[in-house]
Amino acid sequence: MPGESVSLFCNLSNEQRAAVRIAIVANPHPADVAALPGLVWVQSLWAGVEQLVASLPVDGPPIVRMIDPEMSRTMAEAVLAWTYYLQRDMPAYVRQQRERVWNQIAYKKPSSITVGILGLGSLGAAAALRLNEAGFNVAGWSRSKKTLANVHTFSGNDGLIDMLHLSDIVVCLVPLTSQTRGLLNAERLHAMKPRAALINFARGPVVVTDDLLAALDSGHLSHAVLDVFDTEPLPPDSRFWHHPGVSVLPHISAPTDFDTAAMVIAGNIAQFRLTGKVPGSVDTARGY
Amino acid sequence: MPGESVSLFCNLSNEQRAAVRIAIVANPHPADVAALPGLVWVQSLWAGVEQLVASLPVDGPPIVRMIDPEMSRTMAEAVLAWTYYLQRDMPAYVRQQRERVWNQIAYKKPSSITVGILGLGSLGAAAALRLNEAGFNVAGWSRSKKTLANVHTFSGNDGLIDMLHLSDIVVCLVPLTSQTRGLLNAERLHAMKPRAALINFARGPVVVTDDLLAALDSGHLSHAVLDVFDTEPLPPDSRFWHHPGVSVLPHISAPTDFDTAAMVIAGNIAQFRLTGKVPGSVDTARGY
Repeated sequence: MPGESVSLFCNLSNEQRAAVRIAIVANPHPADVAALPGLVWVQSLWAGVEQLVASLPVDGPPIVRMIDPEMSRTMAEAVLAWTYYLQRDMPAYVRQQRERVWNQIAYKKPSSITVGILGLGSLGAAAALRLNEAGFNVAGWSRSKKTLANVHTFSGNDGLIDMLHLSDIVVCLVPLTSQTRGLLNAERLHAMKPRAALINFARGPVVVTDDLLAALDSGHLSHAVLDVFDTEPLPPDSRFWHHPGVSVLPHISAPTDFDTAAMVIAGNIAQFRLTGKVPGSVDTARGY
Repeated sequence: MPGESVSLFCNLSNEQRAAVRIAIVANPHPADVAALPGLVWVQSLWAGVEQLVASLPVDGPPIVRMIDPEMSRTMAEAVLAWTYYLQRDMPAYVRQQRERVWNQIAYKKPSSITVGILGLGSLGAAAALRLNEAGFNVAGWSRSKKTLANVHTFSGNDGLIDMLHLSDIVVCLVPLTSQTRGLLNAERLHAMKPRAALINFARGPVVVTDDLLAALDSGHLSHAVLDVFDTEPLPPDSRFWHHPGVSVLPHISAPTDFDTAAMVIAGNIAQFRLTGKVPGSVDTARGY
């Protein structure tokens, strides 16, 4: 970036640290951020900032999270890819192959399937669009009521139950906040359609692990595709690893693209230099 | 269909059989077709007519095969779904889960992947469009040279080798004819990119089984998604069942939709009654 001086934190003298205005961080040690007294804002490399919000002081510099259109594209692609995985019964065919069983499972058209998306931010909205284009019925739930073309939207506690009632596949794309921690508990999982499936591409603690395992064990839910977990890497003794109703993914749904993420951050900084205004930042009380 | 009399073959007297003008068939016994001396044309329920062409006399009534836009949609969807399956390394993640391995495989953007389609009829063209919309580079090969928007097209023997050279995923959608039987033999499979993958949604004999197994065993090909086989159901002693580089599907990529297929056939018959002309029929010398 012309005119900008970019340095690694560990290479800076105390004097240089005092002059730092913007910190670009992943999951920094809070003491390192506190060692930058002149910070105007903190740029997160991740879209999910629950760790930053929890570890940095409430009265600290504003946090700007990563909102990268390329990440929205990749996440929407992941949602479509694993929706097809469920629609086309790929886990069942993998199981049948292992047992050398030739059995044709009835085809389900996208127009006969409703996918419910939890969270209608930039990721959820992009996923809704891709699913719509592929012919699926799309429902969506968000904290505050939103309107999206061709999406049956819901909000609030009652709205959540209503959306879970009508979705064949529920896709979790909410940020992790004090409001969404444990959002999908036994009660909400039971509100899902019998034999419905869950995709969690958000954060592990949004779903209550034991409640999910119970819903899968009882056969109420048919399958869960899980990319995120309470602890990552997923511990070797987790029941998820060998549960026949679970597909474990190692947090790969929408990896940060270094090239486009760098462009987004450069754009944020250029805008800040030009206008003096900090880019849209996280509401730490809300958590995202 | 108003004005039409539709009967099961087995319910017809000899006199009634003589009056039959159109036969709607799946895989009929040739003697049954021969027992309908007044036939003007034969309507196939399937898109693939290699069994009909082989079993009915060359000088018999023309064969009209099933060309259903809904089947093109379903097949294009299947091609996209299993292309994502390969792009997103789902077979590797299934394997890793079984071994409790947490390992993130590098993400590959669709724009970095070329999908080569063998066969650019109604199914191949629909698949090319869906893959294009999803951001993949698309190449296509057909017997006679074709032009399709945003598709790098090839034809002829040399063109086939050229297309195989540049494709990361090859999707087989050609009809089975004397020309395409054994099309993907050792030589052609070796012309594919190292670690490329194959999807066969056409007919088993288009790919030479032993040559494919050798290409997978040597590691030249990374994976094969096979929905069709020389013998179906796939015999229990086939090596495909337990090969780690093979996903076996029980011929489910694009099942006939009874509702839309009935509409297509009704339309063909109405057109015939109106114009007296047999709908576009199979060139039995060409085989499709």
